[in-house]
Amino acid sequence: MKLGKLAELTNSTIERGSPDLEIKSTAGLDLAGEGDITFLANPKYTPQIAATKAAAIYLNEGIAIDRDDIAVLRAKDSYVAYTRAMRLFFPDPELKKFIHPSAVIDGSAKVADDVEIHANAVIGIGCTIASGARIMPNVTIYDYATIGENTTIHSGVSVREHCEIGRNCIIHNNSTIGSDGFGYAKDEDKHWLKIPQTGRVVLEDDVEIGANTAIDCASVGETRIKRGAKIDNLVQIGHSCTVDEDALICSQTGLAGSSVIGKRVILTGQVGIAGHLKIGDDVVMTAKSAISHDVEPGKIMSGIPAFENRDWLRSTAAFRKLGEMASRLRKLEKRVFGDDQ
Amino acid sequence: MKLGKLAELTNSTIERGSPDLEIKSTAGLDLAGEGDITFLANPKYTPQIAATKAAAIYLNEGIAIDRDDIAVLRAKDSYVAYTRAMRLFFPDPELKKFIHPSAVIDGSAKVADDVEIHANAVIGIGCTIASGARIMPNVTIYDYATIGENTTIHSGVSVREHCEIGRNCIIHNNSTIGSDGFGYAKDEDKHWLKIPQTGRVVLEDDVEIGANTAIDCASVGETRIKRGAKIDNLVQIGHSCTVDEDALICSQTGLAGSSVIGKRVILTGQVGIAGHLKIGDDVVMTAKSAISHDVEPGKIMSGIPAFENRDWLRSTAAFRKLGEMASRLRKLEKRVFGDDQ
Amino acid sequence: MKLGKLAELTNSTIERGSPDLEIKSTAGLDLAGEGDITFLANPKYTPQIAATKAAAIYLNEGIAIDRDDIAVLRAKDSYVAYTRAMRLFFPDPELKKFIHPSAVIDGSAKVADDVEIHANAVIGIGCTIASGARIMPNVTIYDYATIGENTTIHSGVSVREHCEIGRNCIIHNNSTIGSDGFGYAKDEDKHWLKIPQTGRVVLEDDVEIGANTAIDCASVGETRIKRGAKIDNLVQIGHSCTVDEDALICSQTGLAGSSVIGKRVILTGQVGIAGHLKIGDDVVMTAKSAISHDVEPGKIMSGIPAFENRDWLRSTAAFRKLGEMASRLRKLEKRVFGDDQ
Repeated sequence: MKLGKLAELTNSTIERGSPDLEIKSTAGLDLAGEGDITFLANPKYTPQIAATKAAAIYLNEGIAIDRDDIAVLRAKDSYVAYTRAMRLFFPDPELKKFIHPSAVIDGSAKVADDVEIHANAVIGIGCTIASGARIMPNVTIYDYATIGENTTIHSGVSVREHCEIGRNCIIHNNSTIGSDGFGYAKDEDKHWLKIPQTGRVVLEDDVEIGANTAIDCASVGETRIKRGAKIDNLVQIGHSCTVDEDALICSQTGLAGSSVIGKRVILTGQVGIAGHLKIGDDVVMTAKSAISHDVEPGKIMSGIPAFENRDWLRSTAAFRKLGEMASRLRKLEKRVFGDDQ
Repeated sequence: MKLGKLAELTNSTIERGSPDLEIKSTAGLDLAGEGDITFLANPKYTPQIAATKAAAIYLNEGIAIDRDDIAVLRAKDSYVAYTRAMRLFFPDPELKKFIHPSAVIDGSAKVADDVEIHANAVIGIGCTIASGARIMPNVTIYDYATIGENTTIHSGVSVREHCEIGRNCIIHNNSTIGSDGFGYAKDEDKHWLKIPQTGRVVLEDDVEIGANTAIDCASVGETRIKRGAKIDNLVQIGHSCTVDEDALICSQTGLAGSSVIGKRVILTGQVGIAGHLKIGDDVVMTAKSAISHDVEPGKIMSGIPAFENRDWLRSTAAFRKLGEMASRLRKLEKRVFGDDQ
Repeated sequence: MKLGKLAELTNSTIERGSPDLEIKSTAGLDLAGEGDITFLANPKYTPQIAATKAAAIYLNEGIAIDRDDIAVLRAKDSYVAYTRAMRLFFPDPELKKFIHPSAVIDGSAKVADDVEIHANAVIGIGCTIASGARIMPNVTIYDYATIGENTTIHSGVSVREHCEIGRNCIIHNNSTIGSDGFGYAKDEDKHWLKIPQTGRVVLEDDVEIGANTAIDCASVGETRIKRGAKIDNLVQIGHSCTVDEDALICSQTGLAGSSVIGKRVILTGQVGIAGHLKIGDDVVMTAKSAISHDVEPGKIMSGIPAFENRDWLRSTAAFRKLGEMASRLRKLEKRVFGDDQ
C-alpha cells in the first residue's frame, strides 16, 4: 500500500516521505524490517528509533526523532493510527460462503445466503443467522437464538435459547451465552429450590467476548451487554446484569447478579462486583479488587473491599510494615503506660 | 390456574380472594400485570405495593398491606411460595423422545427409551443413559459413565470415563466433569512426573453445576458432590474433594484437592479453599476470602487468610486509614521518644 | 509384577523381601491390601504403618519401620519411586488406531497412520496430526495447527489456527489454545478499536493443560509454554507470555500479557500476574497473591500486592487485630497529647 493511501486511511498526515512509498506491513520498532511501518507511543521506546529498520513511523504531534531516513506520519494518537494500519494489513479472512454438510440446522431456522457454517455446528429451531455470520465447528445455537450480521461464533461456544447476538460481534471459543443464573430459594427442609431463569442474554453490536467466559441469562428479562463492550476470557457475568457501552472487563473478573456497569468502565483482572450495584461511568477497578457498594462515576478503586486507589496505595505501603508497626505500638505503650496495662 | 389450586400447590392459604380467581403468571411487584401473582419478601419493596397491578400476592404471616383489591395468599415463606409458583408457570419443557441421527452412540451403551439425545452428541462404550435424560448437542460422554434419570447435560459438556451423574441433575454448558487432578511428583531432574489420576467424580441427585466449571476426578477413589449441592459457573473443584449436601458454591470459587465442604456451607464468589481442609456445616465464607485451615461449623469467615467476619470488618475499616495511622504512630514516637530513636 | 523388576523400574533397591514377590498394584498406607505396594513420605503417616496390609513399602533412606513382615524398597525419594510404580500399574490406555467416520478432516491435513481420531472431531486445512496422537470427540483443530506425537487432546478443546502442540502433551477438556489476546486501542470517540492478534501459541513437549483453561495467542509472534510446564484448570495465560520449563501454574491463576514466568516457578491457586513482568526462576507465589513488578529468582511472595512471604505473615497476623490496634493508638494519643489534638 502506498504511504499516501495509508495516511488517508489512518487519519494521519505525511510530514516526510513520498506518498508513493510502498508500505508492506506493520511491526514494532524492534521487529520492523524493510518496507514496514512502525510507531512510537511510549517515550520509553525512543532509544529503539536509532536502530529500527522501519521505512516509516507514526508519531504523535510534537514528537521529534533523530532520523531523517524514515518517512514520518503525524497522528493525533500514533497508537490508534498504527492500530488502524494493522487492521488494514491483517484484515479478517474473507468470508467463504458455505454450509458444511455435517452441520445440523433445523429446517425452521432462517439462514442468510452468505454465511459460513462449519462442520458439526448445530443450529436449533427458529434461529436466525444473518448475512456474513461465521459459525465455526462444534458450535451449538439453541432454539430461537439470533446471530447478527458479520458476527463470528468460535468453536465450542454455546448460545442458549432466545439469546440475541448483535452485528460485528466475536465470541471466542468455549464461551457460554445464556446459561441459567444461579438462583435458589431455601425451602422448609433447607434444600435449595431452583428459581426458574426465564430471561435471556442480549449482546448489542461490536461486542467481543473472550474464551471460556460465562454470561448468564436474566432470571426475568435480559442480561444486556451494550454496544462496543469488550469482555476477556474466563469472566463471569451473573444474571440480569447490564454492561454499558465501551466497558472493558478483563480476565477472571466476576459480576454477581443484577449489577450495572457504566459506560467505559474498566474492570481489570480478577475483580469482583457484588450484586445489585451501580458502577458509574468511567470507573476503574484495579486488579483483584472487590466492591460491595455503588461507585460514583470516574473513581479509581482498589482493595478488598475497595476504596479510593490513592488511599489504598498509602494503606498497602503501610501494610508491608504492619508487623513492625505492632511492635512499635507495644513499645510506646510500655513507655507511656508502663507495665500497668 | 385457579387461585385455590395454586395455594394448594404452593403450601399457602387464601386469606382474601376467590379460589376461582384465574392466575396467569408470576411477576415481581413492579412488572406484574393483570392476572399475575406477585410477592413481598423484603420490606424495602413495600412501597411498590401501592402501584402494583398484580391480581394476587404472597405475604409472609403477620405482614399487612394497604390494598384490599388484591387477593392475598399467606405463606410461611412468601419467597419460597412464589418460587414454587414460578416453577408451576415455567416448568421444564416436556421431554421429546428422540435420538438425533447424527449422535454417535457406542453399541454397548445402555440408553433408555425415553431420552433426548441431540445432534452430534457422542456417547462412549458401556455408558448408561437413564430415562428422562436430555443430552444436548455436542456433549461428550466418555466410556463407562452414567447419566441418571431426568438429568440434563447441556451442550459442550464433557463427562469423563467412569463418572456417575445422579438423578434430576443439570450440568450447564461447557463444564468438565472428571478431568485429571493436578498431581505431580518432582523427580531427580526437577521435572514434574505425572501421578496417575485413577478415580472418578460422582454427582448425587439434585445437583446443579454451572457453565464452564471444572470438577477433577479423584487421584484414587471419588470426588463427590452430594445431594442437592449447587455449584455456579467457572468453579474449580480439585481432586478428591467432597462437597456435602445442600452446599452452595458461587462463581469463580476454587477448592484445592481433598477438602471436605460441609452441609449447607455457602462459599460466595471468588473464594479459595486450600487442600486437605474440613469446612464445617453451615459455614459462610464471604466473597474473595481464602482459608488454609479447618473451619468450625457455623462460622462466618472473611479475608485472606480468612478469620471471623466480625473481626475482619473492624480490621478492614481500620485498614482504610492505615497510611494515616502510620503517620500518627510516627508523631507519637517523636513526642514520646524524641529524636533519639 | 515381581518386586525385583519393580525395584529396577523405579530406581530403588530391595532392602528386605524376595525379588520374586508378586506385586499387584499400588495404594496408600490406609487403603493398601494384599499384594499392594505402598509408601511413606510424610512422617505424619508413620502410625499407619502398624495397620497397613501392604505387601511392600517404599521408604526414604534412613527411615526405619517397626514391621518386619513387609518388603522394603529403599529410594532416594519414596514418593517419586511410588509415583513411578503407579505409572507402571496404571499406564495410559493403549492406542487404538482409528479415525471415526463422523470426524471431519480436511483433505489437506497430514494425519499419521497410527492415531485415534474420535467422533465429531473437526480438523482443518493444512493441519498435522503426528503418530500416536489422540483427538477425542468434539475437538476442533483450526487450520494449519500441529499436534505432536503421543499428544492427547480431550473433548471440547479448541486449538486455533497455526498453533503448535508438542509431543507427549495432554490438553484437558474444553480448554482453548490460541484465542485472540485482549488488545484494543481507544479511538477518538472513546470506542475500543480491536488490535489484530496475529501470533500463535506454541506448547513444547511434555506440557499438560487442565480443563477450561484459556491461552491466548500472541499479538505478534508467540505465546510459548516451554517443556514440562504444567497448567491447571481455569487458568488464563494472556497474549505473548512465556512460561518457562517445569513451571507449575495452579487453578484460576491469571497472567496478563507479555509476562515471563521463570523455570520451576510455582504459581499456586488464584494468583494474578500483571503484564510485562519477569518472574525469576524458582519463585513461589502463594495463593491469591498478585504482583505488579518483577520478582527476583527464588523468592516466596504473598499478598496483594505481593511482598516477601515472611513479612507478609507478620503483617497478616497483625491485621487480624488492626481494629484493636486503632483503639490502642487513639488511647495513647489521648494520654500523650491530651484532648488538644
